[in-house]
Amino acid sequence: MKTLITIFGSTGDLTSRKLLPAIEKLLKDHLLDEDTKVIAIGRRDFQTDDYLDYITKSAKTSLDIAYLKRHVEYFKLEVNELRDYQNLKNYIDNHEITFERKIFYLAVGPDLLKDIAINIGVSELVTKGDLSSSITFEKPFGQDLASAKEINQMLWRYYDEKQLYRIDHYLGKEMIQNILTVRFANKIFENSWHNHAIKSVKIIAKETETILSRALYYDTAGAMKDMIQSHLLQMLALIAMEVPKSYQSEDIKDEKVKVFKKLRYDIDSVVLGQYEGYLDEPHINNDSKTETFVFLKAFCDTPRFKGVPFYLLTGKALEEKESVIIIEFEETPEQHKWDLPLKTNKLYIKIAPLDGISLTLNSKVPGLRNAVEQVDLDYCIACNAVGNMPEAYEKLFLDMALGHKSLFTRWDEIELSWKFIDELRKEIKDSNTKLVQYKNHHDLYQTIKALTGEDF
Amino acid sequence: MKTLITIFGSTGDLTSRKLLPAIEKLLKDHLLDEDTKVIAIGRRDFQTDDYLDYITKSAKTSLDIAYLKRHVEYFKLEVNELRDYQNLKNYIDNHEITFERKIFYLAVGPDLLKDIAINIGVSELVTKGDLSSSITFEKPFGQDLASAKEINQMLWRYYDEKQLYRIDHYLGKEMIQNILTVRFANKIFENSWHNHAIKSVKIIAKETETILSRALYYDTAGAMKDMIQSHLLQMLALIAMEVPKSYQSEDIKDEKVKVFKKLRYDIDSVVLGQYEGYLDEPHINNDSKTETFVFLKAFCDTPRFKGVPFYLLTGKALEEKESVIIIEFEETPEQHKWDLPLKTNKLYIKIAPLDGISLTLNSKVPGLRNAVEQVDLDYCIACNAVGNMPEAYEKLFLDMALGHKSLFTRWDEIELSWKFIDELRKEIKDSNTKLVQYKNHHDLYQTIKALTGEDF
Repeated sequence: MKTLITIFGSTGDLTSRKLLPAIEKLLKDHLLDEDTKVIAIGRRDFQTDDYLDYITKSAKTSLDIAYLKRHVEYFKLEVNELRDYQNLKNYIDNHEITFERKIFYLAVGPDLLKDIAINIGVSELVTKGDLSSSITFEKPFGQDLASAKEINQMLWRYYDEKQLYRIDHYLGKEMIQNILTVRFANKIFENSWHNHAIKSVKIIAKETETILSRALYYDTAGAMKDMIQSHLLQMLALIAMEVPKSYQSEDIKDEKVKVFKKLRYDIDSVVLGQYEGYLDEPHINNDSKTETFVFLKAFCDTPRFKGVPFYLLTGKALEEKESVIIIEFEETPEQHKWDLPLKTNKLYIKIAPLDGISLTLNSKVPGLRNAVEQVDLDYCIACNAVGNMPEAYEKLFLDMALGHKSLFTRWDEIELSWKFIDELRKEIKDSNTKLVQYKNHHDLYQTIKALTGEDF
Repeated sequence: MKTLITIFGSTGDLTSRKLLPAIEKLLKDHLLDEDTKVIAIGRRDFQTDDYLDYITKSAKTSLDIAYLKRHVEYFKLEVNELRDYQNLKNYIDNHEITFERKIFYLAVGPDLLKDIAINIGVSELVTKGDLSSSITFEKPFGQDLASAKEINQMLWRYYDEKQLYRIDHYLGKEMIQNILTVRFANKIFENSWHNHAIKSVKIIAKETETILSRALYYDTAGAMKDMIQSHLLQMLALIAMEVPKSYQSEDIKDEKVKVFKKLRYDIDSVVLGQYEGYLDEPHINNDSKTETFVFLKAFCDTPRFKGVPFYLLTGKALEEKESVIIIEFEETPEQHKWDLPLKTNKLYIKIAPLDGISLTLNSKVPGLRNAVEQVDLDYCIACNAVGNMPEAYEKLFLDMALGHKSLFTRWDEIELSWKFIDELRKEIKDSNTKLVQYKNHHDLYQTIKALTGEDF
């Protein structure tokens, strides 16, 4: 299909690091049509060559500029100038290619989102209800429920929900896409995926990085909004949801939404942290109370998961980079008969750094003693797919081009997750939850251990 | 404990290849007392040094003869001479060591078993009911139910059942010992170990070897008696049994016996084979109808396993050496919703050549397509325990020395498995089941596939 990808914010980091490499890969693999064009939008007075030079310098991965030159065109536009959008529309309408699908990708901060979305609508670059054109944007989807609603009301004025592609790039990750397969396509797990067999669920996203250059955004958000509201709650929903009516996008979302409706937190379990040195980061006020670490226990009061604690943990400047979901199964009823230190079975759904699945089992210690040890049955997806592991953005672009919405979030998911976060934040404020300065993360984990008995 | 191990048949293959290496290892690892003595019984006119010279030459593994010399004493005895047993008793009674435990190990063929067992009893080398002394022997435990009963009645005249150690060396193998741990100490399996979740069980023992030098015994037995009656039915019982009252030997055997009571075969499923060249082996009659290959389908009519086929397959001169139990789980109820070729989950309990566990799962194919593949979660016990994997006989000797009987078979197990085999053999005879000559084992597997739909 002849596809147009118009990128707003084309001189930014995301475009050079993620979007253009993904598009280049899809083109070379013939997954995007040879007639695909990328219109790179910017306010700078560039020609296409200037733009590509600029991108080459700022890109961290090597881009094949000679190749991209055949597909990329730079277009100068002031985001507040409606006339520029009308010019853009003329440019596209008069293009030598008649595009069958038009994607408007807003790789911009939340401050610009509103103006651009309105102008795209007013200039009729995208007309409401025309499913051949769509608008894509990145989180944050608002700052809280009220602002998210406001943005959304604006969006719905100009677009159908079906034309809106909200990106949570976590959902494009290989192993996140694999969660439903692992859960539902395997009798051995499907049979034990409930509160009679599952003891707890841990959803962990640890980062070693600090906030880097994201101070302005990050300080207004914090880990709660940046990570919990989006990535971690999405992962939770995929673990906790019921069997969908079908594996079509809307049916899956219907089930995720039911999880969010039944979700509640345990306020006494909340641990907030801020890494030492955060206050010295450029552009951060030295009395900032923004959390860079969150731990909390949540429950999903559905028949399937009632009573099972979901532990969410995320933070920056931690000891390792690791995203993993750990499903801990119950002890066996036979536990007491073995006069041996059995541990519980655990399923590890590994998302980063290497995608994979592993399952810990009790097994006899080889040898003459009567002893039991934990062994890991392991499958490293990433190791077995060298050179074949697509970046999340490749998958997301392909799905946009094909009109597949499974990996994008629907408004009601956003709404309910903000509702959860707003209430939690209010209660944190009311209960004066302490913000722990951390350098030695062991202290954090000790605190959590004391609160919950759980190791992290 | 000061232990005496008296080996009848000490110049035989089993002694040099398995028993002495196991004893040497246990002594060096200080698992047998430094005061342990081995009395090697033979009819040859050897001194101990002659015996050790002889053994050195016939042993396939290198024995530490200098070390063994401190523990081994040769004793000349004619198996039919009661007086020789009385001399042996005097020799032991007057030994500088007062033994606290006496093991009489009959590493002899079934033809000699009876005379030796009687003479040991009559000479009071072992007195009935004295649990500090015991008598050990290898399969075959009879040729059929009648002969097994006869032998057993003789044995019970001189010995308590508790003094009898019937060796099925398969039960000493690491992974066979591990079956109960894997089943019952892991919620993820324990939860699915029944006919609502298990579709079939395959118990496979393939050998590449021919009958080698065992013609005289083998031609009277065949694969049915040599393998199915013992090893394969024992494995089946460990898979199919209920949760035992405790993990003590007698409680486990009680449950295995209940399985044998509920076991039945499907006569229409039986495939018998004889490898091409069998009739040309030395000492084999050229009209022998002995089977070297057996396949059959059995059912265990307990509430837990009713309706689940157990496929037993064993044979010589096959394409590979492999002992494995494959637990195939049911399709998920969600199967039809995935428009993708899902396969069933399978748990592989690998016994030979390398002990291990693996579990096949459905997982998303890494990449941009919506596809599912089977992946193996694997744990190679043998690979992770290099140098630490005891031979089956080490474990069995240690258990004899300690008086642990879990890995030895009780009379009622033998009785019921013979009953099963006798009835099966009678029905095979009555129904004139064909004996297939095989060279290309693919033909055999094709036949089985046609009969059952199953791949082997």
